[in-house]
Amino acid sequence: MTQSINRDTQLCMSLSGRPGNFGTRFQNFLYEALNLNYVYKAFTTKDLPAAIGGIRALGIRGCAISMPFKEACILLVDAMDNSAQAIASINTIVNDGGHLRAHNTDYIAIRKLIEQHGLSPDMRLALHGSGGMAKAVACAFRDAGFRHGHVVARNETTGRKLAEVSGFAWVADMSSVDAALLINVTPLGMEGPEADRLAFDRTDVERATIVFDVVALPPETPLIKLARTLGKPVITGAEVIVLQAVEQFVLYTGVRPDDTLIAKAAAHALS
Amino acid sequence: MTQSINRDTQLCMSLSGRPGNFGTRFQNFLYEALNLNYVYKAFTTKDLPAAIGGIRALGIRGCAISMPFKEACILLVDAMDNSAQAIASINTIVNDGGHLRAHNTDYIAIRKLIEQHGLSPDMRLALHGSGGMAKAVACAFRDAGFRHGHVVARNETTGRKLAEVSGFAWVADMSSVDAALLINVTPLGMEGPEADRLAFDRTDVERATIVFDVVALPPETPLIKLARTLGKPVITGAEVIVLQAVEQFVLYTGVRPDDTLIAKAAAHALS
Repeated sequence: MTQSINRDTQLCMSLSGRPGNFGTRFQNFLYEALNLNYVYKAFTTKDLPAAIGGIRALGIRGCAISMPFKEACILLVDAMDNSAQAIASINTIVNDGGHLRAHNTDYIAIRKLIEQHGLSPDMRLALHGSGGMAKAVACAFRDAGFRHGHVVARNETTGRKLAEVSGFAWVADMSSVDAALLINVTPLGMEGPEADRLAFDRTDVERATIVFDVVALPPETPLIKLARTLGKPVITGAEVIVLQAVEQFVLYTGVRPDDTLIAKAAAHALS
Repeated sequence: MTQSINRDTQLCMSLSGRPGNFGTRFQNFLYEALNLNYVYKAFTTKDLPAAIGGIRALGIRGCAISMPFKEACILLVDAMDNSAQAIASINTIVNDGGHLRAHNTDYIAIRKLIEQHGLSPDMRLALHGSGGMAKAVACAFRDAGFRHGHVVARNETTGRKLAEVSGFAWVADMSSVDAALLINVTPLGMEGPEADRLAFDRTDVERATIVFDVVALPPETPLIKLARTLGKPVITGAEVIVLQAVEQFVLYTGVRPDDTLIAKAAAHALS
């Protein structure tokens, strides 16, 4: 209830070019379920330095950072957690009495998923994409010990750059690649104009051991559907978005919800 | 419900040295009752320029300004409404797409109460106090045509200054004053260390025609109780605080609640 808000209520927020509803619904659901005196609201801005200055001056407890602010924030915070430093990209700011510490819970979530799904660093991977999220994913695999594989990206400049940073090889397409672990970090299959497109060809999926699609909406992309049809284990974008949001929740509140409650919050937020 | 908050929800807020709960409870009650997609939260700050910059950069719809920020804000806004200009003091900021316009709804509320209670400008008044709120009250009476009366204040510097601004005469105490309209704008009778103190002597109240106590908490101060006992009509601080909050609500939302709903919100917020 907004009627339960009082002078001690802590505000958490997000800053993004185009605010969505997932974070707001996910965090507020958990605040209420756990009876925590917090409220969450999404914002956008045309003046990032003033917005971050406002977070500091108003004592806003935490802020999720999305595109296009993930790198521009680096100069505006006071400290970088290893997760943000590892990929020079911020998706979370925690405010302790005016001191802003930056984190990257996308990176943390990918590292956790690699562990939870028991992915072996010996696997040869093919990572499709070269944007901001692709950097978080590629670096998480690099830091988990993965050494063999390719960054697959039509854009040679960003593709080569990401390959260099993450220690994989760049290729423009999958024609010469044989990979056990397929990872999609492009918008192919995402709700919108490319919803029907498959991020990897059927033959690639047939050859693979496991398929990881970072696209969260819809939860069942064409790639995930195909992989399931072929009996391949999958890791979904919904797992990433939920896990990274849980890590934000823990950073803001110090409380780790149990798995049942997380599942309920995720179902609520993704509905 | 905080669960109804989404990306389109507008935030309104307050900035004060010591945030209370009245504004938060009053505004959120009305947002919910009228099904408006707004949420309200109180803040304090140690960096007023950055806080105001944050309001602008984050698109926060409105902000109530309390002590000690009412005058310091003047240099930080883009425009001053007549109500704020009349007393060089701000208690409300409205943000239209990054353009910050300042108002003073205390002044507006006092002007409305003078009219609602049919107070005649011929009445001789005695206004006890010389702080920020006393300025709003004295100038509202001045602008309503009141010309006869005294500012009563032990502090000669602030007392003389307010008397000069508002066109009344300064006196240190009531010994030489005969007034039909008694107005208390000191903390005498307010919840806290001075809760038991009477802002005017019994003999002054006996001589008066009407008694106005700006202290809102408790709603029944010793002065109001005495005036009622003596059969004098009263204007209470609860009327001021509610009316000024209604004017803020209208400025933020463009919606004017009816009197029944205002009474419910006031009862909720003052409980």
